Amino acid sequence: MTIESIPTTHTNEFASSDVQTLLERIDTLEQRIAQLESAPAQDLENMLSMVVFSGDMDRAIAAFIIATGAAAMGMDVSMFFTFWGLSVVKKQKVYDGKNMVEKAFTAMLPAGTQTLALSQMNFFGAGAAIMRKLMKDHEVTSLSELVELARELGVRMVVCDMSRELLGVRDDELIDGLEMGGVATFMGDAARSKVSLFI
Amino acid sequence: MTIESIPTTHTNEFASSDVQTLLERIDTLEQRIAQLESAPAQDLENMLSMVVFSGDMDRAIAAFIIATGAAAMGMDVSMFFTFWGLSVVKKQKVYDGKNMVEKAFTAMLPAGTQTLALSQMNFFGAGAAIMRKLMKDHEVTSLSELVELARELGVRMVVCDMSRELLGVRDDELIDGLEMGGVATFMGDAARSKVSLFI
Amino acid sequence: MTIESIPTTHTNEFASSDVQTLLERIDTLEQRIAQLESAPAQDLENMLSMVVFSGDMDRAIAAFIIATGAAAMGMDVSMFFTFWGLSVVKKQKVYDGKNMVEKAFTAMLPAGTQTLALSQMNFFGAGAAIMRKLMKDHEVTSLSELVELARELGVRMVVCDMSRELLGVRDDELIDGLEMGGVATFMGDAARSKVSLFI
Repeated sequence: MTIESIPTTHTNEFASSDVQTLLERIDTLEQRIAQLESAPAQDLENMLSMVVFSGDMDRAIAAFIIATGAAAMGMDVSMFFTFWGLSVVKKQKVYDGKNMVEKAFTAMLPAGTQTLALSQMNFFGAGAAIMRKLMKDHEVTSLSELVELARELGVRMVVCDMSRELLGVRDDELIDGLEMGGVATFMGDAARSKVSLFI
Repeated sequence: MTIESIPTTHTNEFASSDVQTLLERIDTLEQRIAQLESAPAQDLENMLSMVVFSGDMDRAIAAFIIATGAAAMGMDVSMFFTFWGLSVVKKQKVYDGKNMVEKAFTAMLPAGTQTLALSQMNFFGAGAAIMRKLMKDHEVTSLSELVELARELGVRMVVCDMSRELLGVRDDELIDGLEMGGVATFMGDAARSKVSLFI
Repeated sequence: MTIESIPTTHTNEFASSDVQTLLERIDTLEQRIAQLESAPAQDLENMLSMVVFSGDMDRAIAAFIIATGAAAMGMDVSMFFTFWGLSVVKKQKVYDGKNMVEKAFTAMLPAGTQTLALSQMNFFGAGAAIMRKLMKDHEVTSLSELVELARELGVRMVVCDMSRELLGVRDDELIDGLEMGGVATFMGDAARSKVSLFI
């Protein structure tokens, strides 16, 4: 309904039928706005959520470049480290007090950004070393610096409880500043994020 | 415009210029709301969509833990199984009536949650067996139970038509309760989902 | 507040207290709409953004089937090729004027859709060849045709600057119609996309 089509009285009186129409329009507006306000889209924040499932160096680098890039652009960022992704946020290996399977996993899984392998062309670590050298030569921030940068930029880093238990990873093997959480933690963040990625 | 700044007449008359202003404001509101209502964001539902491309046991576990977790939190969930992901929803291998390439694929591709390999540290199946044992020891729901749980929670499971044809997978090789669909089925779900993941 | 509950005067006069109530309601509506209009969800467009990180033929096919499918459904689509994903948009290998590491990468990395490997069951290229044959037999559009189709459908294809530099990929090695960009280019697109995928 355009303004032109509304029958106004052109006097300083306002007919009761006009009042009724007007009140109905406002009433309808209030209902429509309430519906918009309760729509799922309204939960969205300027936020990025990621599952870091992979423990590959190249994928971890991609994850942290996207995370720090988004944080630098003013977005809230949440990273959820699960399965092999735990290797990315390990700082050391600890064997004391672990059972045999846990010790085997500890031995075989990399611990920390310097020991991760490439997903392709790894050549028993040579590819990963070349990648690290190339990044240094081209002055690309290294993975360990990216992790540090993410922490400084306030990126939320959550470690999957279940994965930690399954792989026998202890608290003192992990870098500082991590939270513990489960799938509900991730989904809670993802459901209010404009962007969600599984890496 | 705040209420204080509106020149009301303080009599029980309502000047026609005021009426005009008021009608214009309501008119503008109606246009702004119509624009909000037709915005792409309004299509969003409290929903999670996933492409399950990988046939790795660990990735399939992650997919179903996220899917069932989201469903338990009240979200609608849709999973689209494509390429190697078809192995996750196979229950058996059938060779009858297949051509040679299809028989070869059938022989080589795993069928069902018990035969999937790990994406890392698989060691010709030993890694996958250790993972299954670890999950049992730690009372983590097994993959086959997770698939069953997903079905009970009403998770929509769609099998990619094109992949099924390419890999020569027959209906009687698949678990029950699956729908058939194509990329349009997935994109239709993803376009109204708050969260979309490619696994 | 329903229409029935509003005390209208039933004369052609409109009490100043009613006017005040009415103006307050409109004022509130304007504030609520302004809030809705400035919500993060309002940035969303009918758009799909993808990171193509993988250089595997099967994952590239999945990426382009989803991309062209979404474009055919009327969505804007943006693809960001990074790391091994660069191989998907290479048309040839050039060795002239490269240093030794760059030459090694050029030799080892595939260039173009015909030379990509499968992520699983590749068997030194046999799997990829079988997949290409299967796609042809089943009249599924080939990867190179999908890339061409994507370009025709107006899919935005952005190459990651940093990856190009790291892997020593030159402009004349890439197919036509690509843009150069960084993580900010991707995040800018992803933040206004209803669907984002990392492949």
